[in-house]
Amino acid sequence: MSSGKVNSDLQNERHKCTFNVTELINWIDGGAKKTEERKKREDMLLKEGIHHEEVPSMYLSHKEKYELAVKKACMLFKMIRRLQEEENAGMENYMAVLGGNLGSAILSDGSPLTLHYVMFIPTLMGQGTVEQQAYWIGRAFNLSIIGTYAQTELGHGTFIRGLETTATYDATTKEFVLHSPTLTSYKWWPGGLAHTANYCIVMAQLYTKGQCHGIHPFIVQLRDEETHMPLPGIKVGEIGAKLGMNGTNNGFLGFDQVRIPRDHMLMKNSKVLEDGTYVNAPSSKLTYGTMMFVRVMIVNDMCNYMAKAVTIATRYSAVRRQSQPKPNEPEPQILDYVTQQHKLFVGIAAVHAFRLTADWLWTMYNNVTAELEAGDLERLPELHALSCCLKAVSTAEAAAGVERCRLACGGHGYMLASNLPTTYGHVTAACTYEGENTVMLLQTARYLVKAWQQAAGGNALTPTVAYLGSVTAGRRSPPWDSTVDGIVAGFRRVAAGKIGLCVAQIEKRQKGGMCYEDAWNMTSVQLTEAAEAHCRAIILSTYHKETEERVKSVSPALKKVLLQLVDLYVVYWALQYVGDLLRFTSISERDIELLQNWYEDLLTKLRPNAVGLVDSFDIKDEILNSALGAYDGRAYERLMEDAMRSPLNAQPVNDSFHKYLKPFMQGKL
Amino acid sequence: MSSGKVNSDLQNERHKCTFNVTELINWIDGGAKKTEERKKREDMLLKEGIHHEEVPSMYLSHKEKYELAVKKACMLFKMIRRLQEEENAGMENYMAVLGGNLGSAILSDGSPLTLHYVMFIPTLMGQGTVEQQAYWIGRAFNLSIIGTYAQTELGHGTFIRGLETTATYDATTKEFVLHSPTLTSYKWWPGGLAHTANYCIVMAQLYTKGQCHGIHPFIVQLRDEETHMPLPGIKVGEIGAKLGMNGTNNGFLGFDQVRIPRDHMLMKNSKVLEDGTYVNAPSSKLTYGTMMFVRVMIVNDMCNYMAKAVTIATRYSAVRRQSQPKPNEPEPQILDYVTQQHKLFVGIAAVHAFRLTADWLWTMYNNVTAELEAGDLERLPELHALSCCLKAVSTAEAAAGVERCRLACGGHGYMLASNLPTTYGHVTAACTYEGENTVMLLQTARYLVKAWQQAAGGNALTPTVAYLGSVTAGRRSPPWDSTVDGIVAGFRRVAAGKIGLCVAQIEKRQKGGMCYEDAWNMTSVQLTEAAEAHCRAIILSTYHKETEERVKSVSPALKKVLLQLVDLYVVYWALQYVGDLLRFTSISERDIELLQNWYEDLLTKLRPNAVGLVDSFDIKDEILNSALGAYDGRAYERLMEDAMRSPLNAQPVNDSFHKYLKPFMQGKL
Repeated sequence: MSSGKVNSDLQNERHKCTFNVTELINWIDGGAKKTEERKKREDMLLKEGIHHEEVPSMYLSHKEKYELAVKKACMLFKMIRRLQEEENAGMENYMAVLGGNLGSAILSDGSPLTLHYVMFIPTLMGQGTVEQQAYWIGRAFNLSIIGTYAQTELGHGTFIRGLETTATYDATTKEFVLHSPTLTSYKWWPGGLAHTANYCIVMAQLYTKGQCHGIHPFIVQLRDEETHMPLPGIKVGEIGAKLGMNGTNNGFLGFDQVRIPRDHMLMKNSKVLEDGTYVNAPSSKLTYGTMMFVRVMIVNDMCNYMAKAVTIATRYSAVRRQSQPKPNEPEPQILDYVTQQHKLFVGIAAVHAFRLTADWLWTMYNNVTAELEAGDLERLPELHALSCCLKAVSTAEAAAGVERCRLACGGHGYMLASNLPTTYGHVTAACTYEGENTVMLLQTARYLVKAWQQAAGGNALTPTVAYLGSVTAGRRSPPWDSTVDGIVAGFRRVAAGKIGLCVAQIEKRQKGGMCYEDAWNMTSVQLTEAAEAHCRAIILSTYHKETEERVKSVSPALKKVLLQLVDLYVVYWALQYVGDLLRFTSISERDIELLQNWYEDLLTKLRPNAVGLVDSFDIKDEILNSALGAYDGRAYERLMEDAMRSPLNAQPVNDSFHKYLKPFMQGKL
Repeated sequence: MSSGKVNSDLQNERHKCTFNVTELINWIDGGAKKTEERKKREDMLLKEGIHHEEVPSMYLSHKEKYELAVKKACMLFKMIRRLQEEENAGMENYMAVLGGNLGSAILSDGSPLTLHYVMFIPTLMGQGTVEQQAYWIGRAFNLSIIGTYAQTELGHGTFIRGLETTATYDATTKEFVLHSPTLTSYKWWPGGLAHTANYCIVMAQLYTKGQCHGIHPFIVQLRDEETHMPLPGIKVGEIGAKLGMNGTNNGFLGFDQVRIPRDHMLMKNSKVLEDGTYVNAPSSKLTYGTMMFVRVMIVNDMCNYMAKAVTIATRYSAVRRQSQPKPNEPEPQILDYVTQQHKLFVGIAAVHAFRLTADWLWTMYNNVTAELEAGDLERLPELHALSCCLKAVSTAEAAAGVERCRLACGGHGYMLASNLPTTYGHVTAACTYEGENTVMLLQTARYLVKAWQQAAGGNALTPTVAYLGSVTAGRRSPPWDSTVDGIVAGFRRVAAGKIGLCVAQIEKRQKGGMCYEDAWNMTSVQLTEAAEAHCRAIILSTYHKETEERVKSVSPALKKVLLQLVDLYVVYWALQYVGDLLRFTSISERDIELLQNWYEDLLTKLRPNAVGLVDSFDIKDEILNSALGAYDGRAYERLMEDAMRSPLNAQPVNDSFHKYLKPFMQGKL
């Protein structure tokens, strides 16, 4: 493997850094102790060498990729099991390994066992009765069975009510009959479903006594526990190759009248009695919990992926030299080009913005969950609206940001050795899974329109939309204020202005004879934009407020840089939204030119600290997994070393020369 | 394979269409005769079945993908050779097959022989002397040798002067000595270089009599013609797996003092005499030709890829149903959602906009080339500036557009069976190859700044920048005009306004003590935006003018739709640029709201013709290669059929169960 001294350009960058990198690492981790714990966990996992690949998986066939993923996943969880026994740790360890950067470093193509831990076991815990939990969770924990969670179908995704799979209760035998009435009702996508899991939680339309009661969860055995052969009536397989995550073993599943015992319906909430009587859940809103939890987690994932991408692109930009703007001077580091800084530095800021917003959302999630358990549902819609738009905006921004980083590395970013394409594969998947982004934005928009109408009716609003009150009250736009607070206030006016316009549009269209649904649809492009502007206001203000709060205890040198990043992020987004600011605030052309100069000035100020800032994300080389981004900056050496690992390079002459090329050249093919 | 009747939703769409699809197909091809020729060519190539894959290449290992690509490429060119002999056709046939959609349908991962035809032979023709052409071109045409073209190096891309490979003339032996002095000087990226080509044109720094004369082309033999073994002093291999195009066999190449005869330098332009005397080229600008040609071709490629992507996403959106906005009504086709129309229809318009702009640029290229050969270099800089920004803007818009189409298909767009990820792989590669996009925009910006200064000095300007004259002359912004012409004029004011601001910024920074280069760099983010705005004005006006000209002969029904598409595209971009229009024109808030309504109205008007419009791109299923986008709309059936072709589905139980999973579950791993 690579060894040797650090690239001298990177060394210079590290000398230039004006703050203490360790201080920032600790600040990000939440204290020196947490940094130590994280490092210990990383070292422990990495020293096992599970991430090491004899032949890099990028060179394997689809089938071999799956087989390698199964092997690695088994070894990983075996190790976690051992660690848990040794340390007597709880579920948290799973999360630390599966979430964050560590899991994706070891299983860069995704894991066929993830859903067992992330969906199968949690759903058993959340939706099973005490008896069901007692029976199933033990078996799942000690891996007597491996499960997954099957909800989406070939023809049905985000709209859950449209699912077609049926579970019909037969009171004579006290069984449910699971059935796939159509091709489009086949379960499609669940990870681990294809060839890995032998049990599955299946979401199906519950029918009893001739009536449909909507979607409920059922445990179904898919494969024989000994032979792993699919059971009668079960049609199961994999859905085929994808843009990324080809180790996750995404599967399809169809039922031909498959019978399961009555107690295989998870009955913590709703029940079917022996005679077929349906007993309703106390509150159906409780099931929103898992979905929101996952969306909160996604914002955090986006932070991790962005951190990887900007670390790679920033270090490479310090090493790469190009062009000769001044005669007789050497080619500059491409990091010195302001266009390059423009592509990278906002990404560095975004990592902090996402992390602090995710933390804030996580706190709110816990508060609302506690309130829920005490029977108070008041803040649930607000949390739902927030988790929807933050999921959409953070995944879209991260996808664009990772691609910008990849393109900022020029052609070399296109190589898998950069790890940027694989990172993009993970991030862009999040734009469509767990709620497609446009649908998410429209859910938030629906909440905003309601809030707007409440405010117009003089009612008080929940905190995150309280600002709508002042705009509906008709207050005039205050003079433009080019501070961070002023810009955040500007974004609130933009969001409020856009929501107001949407409401007016919908009403106008209704007066023109359209029904509400059609008027909503006609206005929906503007509605998504309103939700985005609202979400931007939330992210900018949260990032600003949380940073101001948390920098109180840090050194002046670090504080300065962290606040510069906030400024950069806020000004960057102000410049992106210049049209809306012109429409809905009193910003002037002169203000815009000053913002632009402020932005350029911030890029110059952050330039000397760029490498220090990405070093502070403290991503180990094994986790970063990038020839372009390694800590030592030996980008070219590593590219060549990685190339030499290609099986094609094992032979000087490929067999195809004799088989095709030579006969072709000789006209004999 | 799939067969059976057409999906009824798609059938309904085709009934609704208000224009004659065949008329539009012919209009796009340039006449019914051209359509017929194209179809004949397609049928001829496809009936050979070379595109057919026993195991789809997406399931193969990296090495197998290459071997399949070699096999297919040999069969493809063997067939072309045969067809040429039969029909006595010229080079044009190569272009028809390699460019356009046909080549990428047969070799979806790229071809290891492309550079032989697209770069090796043309460079021999363009840069070889008559004697050299006589010797080499024959051998290359009859495939006695297979060549490629090596310019970029591991450490050097867009900045050609920075290349490090040296070719030092040794007058005593009358040879050039090729050498790679550093790791960064290794050639890196050329297609076919790794294991396919046995000859190569190498761009190297020419040294003779102790002096460097810059980059020149040399023919170097890489491998033994019989055994294909690399020759002594040649280090050659492949660079490793990439985001896409893994059949292209991109390679690296290093020289350890490799000697070649003097007449292996291509000497049509510059020469080295036997005694080592260097004789300069008559005009170094002539070598710009190839680069510009390739950039013109790229705009056309982008049109083809966009056409594929919108065809897939639009047909799938007609088939896919989701959600239930109105109670008791069936789930609507997702094509009925205005947010979906917003994602797709602008892409349909972009196909036409790109095609007409590429045609226009092609005509200009031919005119300028003819002028060049007559010794007139006057319009060369203008063409260069245009080809740079059009390359950058079209590739960036196509990349964003293809991804938007992919995401518009939800999770299923993530499957390789959709063919959208592979299409993205091709398109996004074009953002960094043949001149990185930011560098391209800055080249155009440099031309615009010069033009601005000429105009300010009262000089006349070349046609595509003539509009700068009226703005520098200080004419006030005319009243806003919400017609297509008015919007195009608005874009020109935006471009001019931005260039003017940039010039002012640079001057101000120089007065503040910066040198010109630093002032330019500090202003470069704004400069790229100015170049983009200029390019938008060009595309919008060209699309509009060319359409108006060419619809004169079409039926009223078709004319109406084609003009609606122009309107849509222009209004879409006006709404994207609202901030700039507010800054640099007299557009008002009221005008913006009207534009927004106009846009929404256009979406509604185009909705019934959406499927007809993509049908008119007339992309055969074999070329589209998409389960989601096939003509019959049997998206779900095809997804399942494609899944069943995965080798993982050939066995009910994968070996990894016995090897890893079962021992793991039993705690025996």
